[in-house]
Amino acid sequence: MGIVVMKFGGTSVADAERIRAAARRAIATRKQGHQVVMVVSAMGHTTDELIALAKGITDNLPKREMDQLLATGEQVTISLVAMALEELGQPAISFTAGQIGMITDDVHTKARIKSIDVRRIHEQLEKGRIVIVAGFQGVTEDGAVTTLGRGGSNVTLVAVAAALKADMCENYTDVDGIFTADPRIVPNARKVDRMSYDEMLELASLGANVLHNRAVEFAKKYNVPIHVRSSLNTNKGTMIVAETETMERIVVSGAALKDKLARVSLRNVPDKPGAAARVFHTIATHNIVVDDIIQTLDESGKATIAFTVEMGDLDDAKRVIGRLCDELGCQAVFEDHLAKVSVVGVGMRVHTGVAERMFAALAKAGINIQNITTSEIKISVLINRDQAKEALRLVHDAFDLGQKPKKSPSKARAKKK
Amino acid sequence: MGIVVMKFGGTSVADAERIRAAARRAIATRKQGHQVVMVVSAMGHTTDELIALAKGITDNLPKREMDQLLATGEQVTISLVAMALEELGQPAISFTAGQIGMITDDVHTKARIKSIDVRRIHEQLEKGRIVIVAGFQGVTEDGAVTTLGRGGSNVTLVAVAAALKADMCENYTDVDGIFTADPRIVPNARKVDRMSYDEMLELASLGANVLHNRAVEFAKKYNVPIHVRSSLNTNKGTMIVAETETMERIVVSGAALKDKLARVSLRNVPDKPGAAARVFHTIATHNIVVDDIIQTLDESGKATIAFTVEMGDLDDAKRVIGRLCDELGCQAVFEDHLAKVSVVGVGMRVHTGVAERMFAALAKAGINIQNITTSEIKISVLINRDQAKEALRLVHDAFDLGQKPKKSPSKARAKKK
Repeated sequence: MGIVVMKFGGTSVADAERIRAAARRAIATRKQGHQVVMVVSAMGHTTDELIALAKGITDNLPKREMDQLLATGEQVTISLVAMALEELGQPAISFTAGQIGMITDDVHTKARIKSIDVRRIHEQLEKGRIVIVAGFQGVTEDGAVTTLGRGGSNVTLVAVAAALKADMCENYTDVDGIFTADPRIVPNARKVDRMSYDEMLELASLGANVLHNRAVEFAKKYNVPIHVRSSLNTNKGTMIVAETETMERIVVSGAALKDKLARVSLRNVPDKPGAAARVFHTIATHNIVVDDIIQTLDESGKATIAFTVEMGDLDDAKRVIGRLCDELGCQAVFEDHLAKVSVVGVGMRVHTGVAERMFAALAKAGINIQNITTSEIKISVLINRDQAKEALRLVHDAFDLGQKPKKSPSKARAKKK
Repeated sequence: MGIVVMKFGGTSVADAERIRAAARRAIATRKQGHQVVMVVSAMGHTTDELIALAKGITDNLPKREMDQLLATGEQVTISLVAMALEELGQPAISFTAGQIGMITDDVHTKARIKSIDVRRIHEQLEKGRIVIVAGFQGVTEDGAVTTLGRGGSNVTLVAVAAALKADMCENYTDVDGIFTADPRIVPNARKVDRMSYDEMLELASLGANVLHNRAVEFAKKYNVPIHVRSSLNTNKGTMIVAETETMERIVVSGAALKDKLARVSLRNVPDKPGAAARVFHTIATHNIVVDDIIQTLDESGKATIAFTVEMGDLDDAKRVIGRLCDELGCQAVFEDHLAKVSVVGVGMRVHTGVAERMFAALAKAGINIQNITTSEIKISVLINRDQAKEALRLVHDAFDLGQKPKKSPSKARAKKK
């Protein structure tokens, strides 16, 4: 008996049949005595189709008008979902972001939510209706339509759940939950029952594609538990929750692979203040997203600045960095055959030997590590792309991720790694 | 130098090329020094596609949700038109009905406009922008999306022009203006330069399909002149304006044909108070639209009640009236081969002999008149459908509508017909 917010992504509302399935699911939850809010995305490929329409008009897409355009996708879905619920005998009402005062800043195409006025939602829930909210969109104080950027519908899910102080927040997708690794690559990958916000954040930025970081950050900030589960069955999925002490007993929660990486190295960069800043300012102004950064000094006092980028950004990087190196008098080297394998787990904070175990497994198979980056709860290695899938499987096995965690006894807190 | 409001219907914004053409047209007007507001409809068949989507979900379309759904059609167009203008170097901004406070009552699917807050439009016009407004839609005071019913974008055009006190209000269509008759049937039909609101209202309800009655009524109420013209050329079209005395010099302004009519006759209806009311109440509750009504009494004191309906409503009428006649003890007769030819002109108020001239032309060709209905400014006759097109041509010629009006000398006002 509480408020449940359920989010259905684009594939879960792709056609009339799936919309009906989502509606039945919401009704089942309603019949358990809960008040139900649904957050829905645009149907299937609608957003792509709208973008194609705009590109038929101009190459230079004005952001305010793009938001006005794209927001129609979710508006179509909410009304169809409301109709499906009514058709099944369940009173329902749909709301655009504007209709529930989902106020954002005015940064079009990636706006941030400032506030939600939930009175109207509560009012309708009290009347026994299921409320359907358009995901991905907001409005400025002026009433201009905004969109929330990639993963925006999940941000809506968490924001609505937080504002309503919901008892449950469910993210319906086409997978069963979060896995210890991508099951398409690692056959014995296992669904994780519980995972902390921080682990999810690391995994998402390392290549796991289920929940976007902004939604998870929002959930962490407001301590909203997210249940990631399948819209195709009623199995329990993965609960993304605040970290608990028991979680630390599990050393590694998951492994991830980020494929298609390239490395850009600038050699003999003059070691002066501002050189690195100049490099990354140039990169940023060209909208090239940098993954990891490593800077080293050689004996002569010259620096090597290296960073990884997605393969899709490599051509841009070559052009920009080539020009920059001419100016700075340094040499650029580009490598386009790399991948990154990572392990993540809050247990690393209290367990030793994690890096060692990972490196040993790779060494045994003759996989050369080209670079290592770490955070408090993850270790990443850069390797050759043609060994990446094998490496992911090896690492997955090295930490026994295919088995239910043994829950190692809670030791005295030791320095990690 | 003033405010011009230009409306482009669905066919005039059906694809990227036509959107660009509409944008160029608006820019040309802007370059003449005017402030420009564009009102646009949904692209081509968008509305039909959205209705089909809804019908894939339910047969019982809930009106509030249908409005939420259909309003997306115009929202797509406004953003694309704004992009096209920007692409052509013209600053522009699009507004949904909600964004300019186009407040309506809450009668979903055929809402009536209560007020418009034009401050935001003026603000943007002052900045030199072209403002694009979504036609066909409104919002209730609560922020629910409404739509204005058939011809709704024209209602938006007139309402926006009235609220802005616009100097000109242009309705762009795929025809050159209002014609003395449908040129597909009457080869020598001629474009009318000026026509009064009342004449346009009669012609629209008699089968001319260019401007819907509600828009014309609105224009008449606020005395907004409408220029009906083609989006394919720059010719002058037809000005729909308040009646002037000169207009009365022209006896007949146009002729119209309403095809595909059926007549329903109830014979031997007991001549008691309430019998007719009962008949038309039954008809109305079944959403059957009645055209003309004729009631006659025979010597025995029994009444015959007859009325015409569109062919599309005949099957419903047969079912409903059949049942009713069983109850009332009267006989129903159905005729499904009829059509109505009409002539319209404010000059009828002051000229005599109009009916005579019309009937004589039909009699000479052996066309039998089955029924006559009149108003102050029109005469309609019901005839067999297979003679309808010939009748329209004959009537058109009888009043010399193919020639520029001769402007008969302004006589002393005489009783019409």
